[in-house]
Amino acid sequence: MSSFTRLVRFLAKDGRTYYGDAILPSGTSDLTRVTQAKVIRGRPWGRHEVTEQVADVRLLLAPLAREDVQTVRCLGLNYEQHAHESGMPIPKYPVLFYKPITSVAGPFDPIPVSAAAQEAKGLDYECELVAVIGKAGKNISESQALSYVAGYCVGNDVSHREWQLKRGGGQWALGKGFDGWAPIGPGIVSSKLIKDPQNLRITTKLNGKTVQDSNTKDMIFGVAQTIARLSEGTTLLPGDLIFTGTPQGVGMGRKPQLWLKDGDVVEVTLEGVGSCINKVEFEKTKAKL
Amino acid sequence: MSSFTRLVRFLAKDGRTYYGDAILPSGTSDLTRVTQAKVIRGRPWGRHEVTEQVADVRLLLAPLAREDVQTVRCLGLNYEQHAHESGMPIPKYPVLFYKPITSVAGPFDPIPVSAAAQEAKGLDYECELVAVIGKAGKNISESQALSYVAGYCVGNDVSHREWQLKRGGGQWALGKGFDGWAPIGPGIVSSKLIKDPQNLRITTKLNGKTVQDSNTKDMIFGVAQTIARLSEGTTLLPGDLIFTGTPQGVGMGRKPQLWLKDGDVVEVTLEGVGSCINKVEFEKTKAKL
Repeated sequence: MSSFTRLVRFLAKDGRTYYGDAILPSGTSDLTRVTQAKVIRGRPWGRHEVTEQVADVRLLLAPLAREDVQTVRCLGLNYEQHAHESGMPIPKYPVLFYKPITSVAGPFDPIPVSAAAQEAKGLDYECELVAVIGKAGKNISESQALSYVAGYCVGNDVSHREWQLKRGGGQWALGKGFDGWAPIGPGIVSSKLIKDPQNLRITTKLNGKTVQDSNTKDMIFGVAQTIARLSEGTTLLPGDLIFTGTPQGVGMGRKPQLWLKDGDVVEVTLEGVGSCINKVEFEKTKAKL
Repeated sequence: MSSFTRLVRFLAKDGRTYYGDAILPSGTSDLTRVTQAKVIRGRPWGRHEVTEQVADVRLLLAPLAREDVQTVRCLGLNYEQHAHESGMPIPKYPVLFYKPITSVAGPFDPIPVSAAAQEAKGLDYECELVAVIGKAGKNISESQALSYVAGYCVGNDVSHREWQLKRGGGQWALGKGFDGWAPIGPGIVSSKLIKDPQNLRITTKLNGKTVQDSNTKDMIFGVAQTIARLSEGTTLLPGDLIFTGTPQGVGMGRKPQLWLKDGDVVEVTLEGVGSCINKVEFEKTKAKL
C-alpha cells in the first residue's frame, strides 16, 4: 500500500516528470495550488520511497501515468437528485460502465472534441469523486472496502449525450470513451486523510458559473458499498479507478439544455482535494491516417 | 510491429513461462495441438526476437500476459442472424462495451462462476473472433485498418443474461466482467497469415455438441470498419483486444433457453486458429475477505 499523503505527478522546472508527495501551501488543502513536492522514487503501486528532495512544480499532470492505471470503472445514476433529473428510477444495483485508459487526462489538459463528437449536439460535463484502488481484492466486504482505497481525486466524466444515448444501441461506451474525456486530479489525497468520503462538497463551474453543487452524501451506492458490489467475482487491481457518478445539474438535465462549446472552461472541484480545470477544444480537421 | 507468425504463451516442460512462435505439427493449422514453439525473447509490443531455441509446451496460457493487454473492447449484436434471434434491429453504429483486463483468461482455463453469478439463471457462451491491435492509431481509415491488427485469436465472451440485461440498469457490464470470463487463444495468428478475416468459420460446441456454427462473413461491422469507427477520436493501443461479436445460437436465443451448468465444457473454434476449451466451475463459497 502506498505511503504518500497527496500523490501528484508533475512536470518540474528542471523539465523532467516526477511523481511526488505534494507540499501544501500554508492555509489551503487545495492541491490545485501546489508549487512544490517531495520527489517519489519508484512507482505508486510498486516499491517506492518519498524522498526529502523537493522539486518545483511547473505543471500538474494526471496523477497516475498511463502504465499505472488499470481498468477505469464508472457508475451512472448514482446520486438521488441526478436520477430524478434524468427521469430514471433509483437503481437496485450499481449501473456500471467503463472508459478506456486513453480517456485519462490531467487536471489542466484540454478536452479534445474530435470531428465525430462534433457531428451532433450533446457535449456535457459530470463532476465525480474518483476512488483509486491501492490493493488487489475480490469479494471485498463493505466493512473492509475503504482499506482497499489508496486515495481520492476529482474527475470529469465528459459525455456526449447523442453518442451515449442514441447511437450506441443503449450502451453508453461510444459517448464516454473519447481520448482525454476523463480528466482526473489535481492529485490523489490518501484515504488516511479522507476517512469519510461520503461528506464532501462536489461542484462544477462552467466559465466561472456554478452549474453543479452537491455533496457526496447524496450518493446511492457509497464508495464502500460500490467496492463491495463491483468486487463480487471480480478482482480489483491497484491502479483501478472508480468514477462514482455525478450529482444533479448536468447540461442534459437543465431547461433549456446546456451543451459545452469550443473554448468553454469546465472546473470540477472536490472538497479537500482541489480542482480539474479543463478547456474544451474542438479539433479542426478529421485527420485520417 | 510484431514479427511473430503464431504467438503463443505457455508453461514449458522446464517449469517456466515463455512467449513463443508456435511450431505447427504437420498437417494442421490448429494451434490447440501445438507441442513446441520457438522461444521469443522480449515482449510482443516492445523489442523482441524470435530465437532458434525450441521449448516443449506443457500448457498453453492466455497468449498475452496481463501487463501486455490494454483495453478490452467488445461488440454486441454484430452478426445479422444473431441480431434477428435477439429480436433487435440491425445497428447503425457498433454496439460497444468493455470487459476489465481481469476477465482475460487462457484457452484451457476454467470459467469461474462466483456466488453472485450463481444467484440467478442465465450463464451463456459467445464464440467470437478477437482482433489484437499491434500498432497505436487514431482516426484510422477503413482501408488502412487491417494494418493495425497484429493478429487474430478466438475468444469466448462469457455472459450472464440476468446480470447483463436485468440488473445493470441497461448497461451490460455487470454481466460480462467477472474474472476469467474472456478466455482467449489458443494463440494469436498473425494478420500476415489471415489476410481476410471476413471468411472464417466460427463455432461453439457445448459438451461436444455444436450449438453455434457460422462464418465471420455474417458480421455487420467487419474488422476493418470496426477499427475505423472505434478509433474515431480514440487512440487504439498495442495490446487492445476487440471482441467482434457472436453469431446466432447463443443459449438465450434457443427454445427452450439453454444455460451453462457446473462442469459443462465449452469449446469455441475459429478456422485457421484453433480452439479455447474451458470448463465451467461453480465456486463453492463466497469468500469474504
